[in-house]
Amino acid sequence: MAMHQLVEYTEASAEVRAVYDDIMATRKTDWINNFWKVLANDPVTLRRTWESIKQIMAPGALDPLIKEMIYIAVSVTNQCPYCVASHTASARNKGMTDAMFHELMAVVGMANETNRLASGYQVEIDEQFKQ
Amino acid sequence: MAMHQLVEYTEASAEVRAVYDDIMATRKTDWINNFWKVLANDPVTLRRTWESIKQIMAPGALDPLIKEMIYIAVSVTNQCPYCVASHTASARNKGMTDAMFHELMAVVGMANETNRLASGYQVEIDEQFKQ
Amino acid sequence: MAMHQLVEYTEASAEVRAVYDDIMATRKTDWINNFWKVLANDPVTLRRTWESIKQIMAPGALDPLIKEMIYIAVSVTNQCPYCVASHTASARNKGMTDAMFHELMAVVGMANETNRLASGYQVEIDEQFKQ
Amino acid sequence: MAMHQLVEYTEASAEVRAVYDDIMATRKTDWINNFWKVLANDPVTLRRTWESIKQIMAPGALDPLIKEMIYIAVSVTNQCPYCVASHTASARNKGMTDAMFHELMAVVGMANETNRLASGYQVEIDEQFKQ
Amino acid sequence: MAMHQLVEYTEASAEVRAVYDDIMATRKTDWINNFWKVLANDPVTLRRTWESIKQIMAPGALDPLIKEMIYIAVSVTNQCPYCVASHTASARNKGMTDAMFHELMAVVGMANETNRLASGYQVEIDEQFKQ
Amino acid sequence: MAMHQLVEYTEASAEVRAVYDDIMATRKTDWINNFWKVLANDPVTLRRTWESIKQIMAPGALDPLIKEMIYIAVSVTNQCPYCVASHTASARNKGMTDAMFHELMAVVGMANETNRLASGYQVEIDEQFKQ
Repeated sequence: MAMHQLVEYTEASAEVRAVYDDIMATRKTDWINNFWKVLANDPVTLRRTWESIKQIMAPGALDPLIKEMIYIAVSVTNQCPYCVASHTASARNKGMTDAMFHELMAVVGMANETNRLASGYQVEIDEQFKQ
Repeated sequence: MAMHQLVEYTEASAEVRAVYDDIMATRKTDWINNFWKVLANDPVTLRRTWESIKQIMAPGALDPLIKEMIYIAVSVTNQCPYCVASHTASARNKGMTDAMFHELMAVVGMANETNRLASGYQVEIDEQFKQ
Repeated sequence: MAMHQLVEYTEASAEVRAVYDDIMATRKTDWINNFWKVLANDPVTLRRTWESIKQIMAPGALDPLIKEMIYIAVSVTNQCPYCVASHTASARNKGMTDAMFHELMAVVGMANETNRLASGYQVEIDEQFKQ
Repeated sequence: MAMHQLVEYTEASAEVRAVYDDIMATRKTDWINNFWKVLANDPVTLRRTWESIKQIMAPGALDPLIKEMIYIAVSVTNQCPYCVASHTASARNKGMTDAMFHELMAVVGMANETNRLASGYQVEIDEQFKQ
Repeated sequence: MAMHQLVEYTEASAEVRAVYDDIMATRKTDWINNFWKVLANDPVTLRRTWESIKQIMAPGALDPLIKEMIYIAVSVTNQCPYCVASHTASARNKGMTDAMFHELMAVVGMANETNRLASGYQVEIDEQFKQ
Repeated sequence: MAMHQLVEYTEASAEVRAVYDDIMATRKTDWINNFWKVLANDPVTLRRTWESIKQIMAPGALDPLIKEMIYIAVSVTNQCPYCVASHTASARNKGMTDAMFHELMAVVGMANETNRLASGYQVEIDEQFKQ
């Protein structure tokens, strides 16, 4: 289990295939990436995670591309190589340009810097921010 | 130094006042929040940090409101209370609605969850993401 | 030093060998993993770290398998690939089933999500939790 | 929105009350803690988060108390004060003794230490852990 | 247990007092800070933690003041308010000047920024760094 | 863009070359590492980041070698493999001995441990640290 099996479509249970089919239909793609193939070892978590992501990443008050960029911001902050690679690819597919990516990285870098300045200087929250 | 002095405008050096003036002019506001007042203990870092933020947060390929929401995403992930409070207030001033904030939080939460599933299941990066 | 030497048993000092012997005896195994071989470059840290881990991971109010799963929870949260791989292997050796691992991952993922919701929504601690 | 309203039961919509009722029934308690009252500003996230937690924290291959301790391990690692306070209280309600808590903290502390030793010494994953 | 008792010297066991005495003698101070008073609820962890810190923070290849500043760098990065406050006070007692603190913060902030640029841009390690 | 181009000197714009030249002159080296070659895809961020690092890492109240070790402490805490490798190499070039590195790692590991003990035990900041 240190290395987890990839559950391929052809060998998947009907329960897993149903999720795979929905992923491909929702994303208008014909392949499943490793994250889902590994998660399929636990069909309950596979389904819950997919249903949650499908609901959260759908168009709403925020555009799906903006949501992908927020996903990248978190993944970069957490130093998750898989997540950075996969969500950068997704964002590119949804229309993220080089210029948008560069600005995204600049903001993420800066936020990580000032987060620590605020912590290190023990800055107290202004009354104006508590209203 | 465990608790750092707030450098108020009236007692600030000309060098610090110049930064304060630029902050207020750029943000179209008449007050300076604690982050800058504390950072003013080190005028070199005050200036460099402000100049960088001013450049990074300006309109570009991404809208300033989107940039504020990315800032929140990072600050929430890092558990920085000051940063969450100040950038949530800034984003609201720039037009973030309740609905936008709720979706932002949903994405940030989900990304933090799947970042760990990817790590815990030791998922390998798909060849398709390496192109 | 960017890449650190692995100190193999046959070339190790008596001081290092004593720790290696204790590791193998305590764990009922006949090999030493890379973590210890690298740490052996600093025999003082090697000994202190091993003595601490030996004391902490021993049976007590919590079962050693539970302790391994807590170790995985931390390692996954911190995105430490080596630690995830090694402690997942250790937990499996101590009896962790697939079902247990899947539930562990589900809890770790969920906790990382709600940690950020609590931070992002700036939730204040209930009086009931302060007693 | 910098500070979020607590949605009390008496003023909650039927949709929110239904979740509150299920939380109290499932947990055999007569009050709702601030996390849920704040999340209730977004009924969609409230429901999805509660349904996920209810499913994940239920008895299974792991005991609910073990799951609460894993939740604490993550929350402590992430430095989330609200989450540490609330899940420590929950774990105590489910039977966590002082001795169990002390051992939990010892493991969490040690794991955070060795995670960094593995990172700093750039330890490579043993072949034995890749099987 | 959500809130942990402070074990005061006058009510402490002989075992705990011995550690307290060693802390005060080593640090040439006449009081014990809350970290140790809370940890004293678990005398085993109290002793192990103190013995480790005493060994690690002693003069060696690095000066004790440098070690305190490294401690601050980690604590700021992890957003640990207690640790930032206590180690900033310790460093000041050991001679950290305002100028040193300001440079420390600048480096910590910058490192947190470039860590994310390296992650976000998926930079591969140069061969020259692997030697 | 999931994988980013390395901008080599011979194919770089005059703007990027000027930064590369300054990096090599400042560091008294004849090559550019991947971090800068990737960042060069965004010349604005390349220049701003380099100018900031050049200013921050210069000799001041803290020695450049101490600053490199602080950089390592942050990078190790954040689990950034590229940053650990590159700054460990830089520190070695500036005179970091094995003994210094070992003590650095011991402090970083310990700080990460006690940061979590402080968080998990919910230790309150002593009045003495607030002055």
